[in-house]
Amino acid sequence: VTTDRLPIGVFDSGVGGLTVARALMQRLPREKILYFGDTARVPYGIKSEETINHFAIQIAEFLLAQQVKVLIIACNTMAAVAARAIAELAPVPVLDVIAAGAQGAVERTRNRRIGVIGTLATIRSGAYDLAIRRIDAGVEIVSQPCPLFVPLVEEGWFSHEVTRLTAQEYLKPLIADSVDTLVLGCTHYPLLKPLLQEVAGPTVELVDSADAVAARTETLLLEHGLANPGVSSPLHQFFVTDVPQRFQQIGEQFLGRTLAPVQVVRL
Amino acid sequence: VTTDRLPIGVFDSGVGGLTVARALMQRLPREKILYFGDTARVPYGIKSEETINHFAIQIAEFLLAQQVKVLIIACNTMAAVAARAIAELAPVPVLDVIAAGAQGAVERTRNRRIGVIGTLATIRSGAYDLAIRRIDAGVEIVSQPCPLFVPLVEEGWFSHEVTRLTAQEYLKPLIADSVDTLVLGCTHYPLLKPLLQEVAGPTVELVDSADAVAARTETLLLEHGLANPGVSSPLHQFFVTDVPQRFQQIGEQFLGRTLAPVQVVRL
Repeated sequence: VTTDRLPIGVFDSGVGGLTVARALMQRLPREKILYFGDTARVPYGIKSEETINHFAIQIAEFLLAQQVKVLIIACNTMAAVAARAIAELAPVPVLDVIAAGAQGAVERTRNRRIGVIGTLATIRSGAYDLAIRRIDAGVEIVSQPCPLFVPLVEEGWFSHEVTRLTAQEYLKPLIADSVDTLVLGCTHYPLLKPLLQEVAGPTVELVDSADAVAARTETLLLEHGLANPGVSSPLHQFFVTDVPQRFQQIGEQFLGRTLAPVQVVRL
Repeated sequence: VTTDRLPIGVFDSGVGGLTVARALMQRLPREKILYFGDTARVPYGIKSEETINHFAIQIAEFLLAQQVKVLIIACNTMAAVAARAIAELAPVPVLDVIAAGAQGAVERTRNRRIGVIGTLATIRSGAYDLAIRRIDAGVEIVSQPCPLFVPLVEEGWFSHEVTRLTAQEYLKPLIADSVDTLVLGCTHYPLLKPLLQEVAGPTVELVDSADAVAARTETLLLEHGLANPGVSSPLHQFFVTDVPQRFQQIGEQFLGRTLAPVQVVRL
């Protein structure tokens, strides 16, 4: 097997990173994906940096052992905390949702005021601020942790009055500061897109990190001659650390297609 | 050291079980408590039964190795799934919040219609139904999972409009069914008591499992001659698997007193 025919490794703390897998499948239909969701230890957003690093490295090593040509950190929390450690150990290119989302936001803002929403751990880490300022030091950034959005998405209350009130409360400081671009800094948030667009107003552009990282992956594969030349539709593989049935059910909703059998791995 | 001078072991998936520790401290001020919170792997409510059993047994074995005279399962999810497995391995009496809460509810209901609220895993397990029917098979039970209450408590939105709307939505079927007793089947819920009382109405009596299990512990210690005869105020000990600083901060709010240094344990 030549390197270009190897799969792409994508990992997340749970099911949320499937929004990244979906964006990759749409943009790069010939690429095979190995997806890893750490469903036994989700959520990561409330854990210490030390623990997040430890778990993230375990997962990266598992995927590297399966022979992947690129690693994608689809979890914002792991990207915020462990991206450097993973890049240091991986012999293949490593992309992550934060670097990609930051790039997308800087490209789109006109008034150079960017809002970022995410989990507590992602926002506290300051990783989006750092990534954005590395590209354009003069941008103003307003960040807001939104810890209730993940449970609201998992409850399926995508357009419920409770979710609308919660979004109004969380987005208030960002709207007051006239951001014109809003980074959805958590893989669950794309499922709230219509409601967030409505609350933020039509002048605010939403940046979906899943789309952004898929676009960066396409560029990387072309630049490095790593694009899969095959024509058949690949059989993706899914690994989880717990509850494969629930993962399969939610995964099929997320992806809108049948999943191959999901395998359980103990790390 | 004679058995009656040994501490009481209390464990939970995280910080929530401190409501049980607080109830024990108030009711049994001479008893020393060893508290274990599995903060690296919280929350348990979304994990499989197999994983919950595995983790619960690890924690019980850790506390038994520290020499405790009674084990209290302060986590509803672990009580629902792993109470029998723990009772089988423990050479000391094992109490849990579900058995105690069920007893309290049956004692208080007048119309024999009891409502139970809890996490998804607790409600799905049917453990409260089973425990209540074992005492009185003729009671009607209406159960409702409330997955948003824990994140709302952790956000500190105890009386926020969002929490009120969420409670109205969750409690609707219980109120429609005229329950006169409502079991708070999750250790976080006592912090929502005033709001839940208001939404449920003045004719509904709330049963707090933390109070209920503390009362059962007092009875058990007296019946078995296990009450600590000491007079000095004991130095409680706290073990967690991650982020001791955050645990200490939330714990001191929960308990309204300074915590002894919190130790980190890797299981």
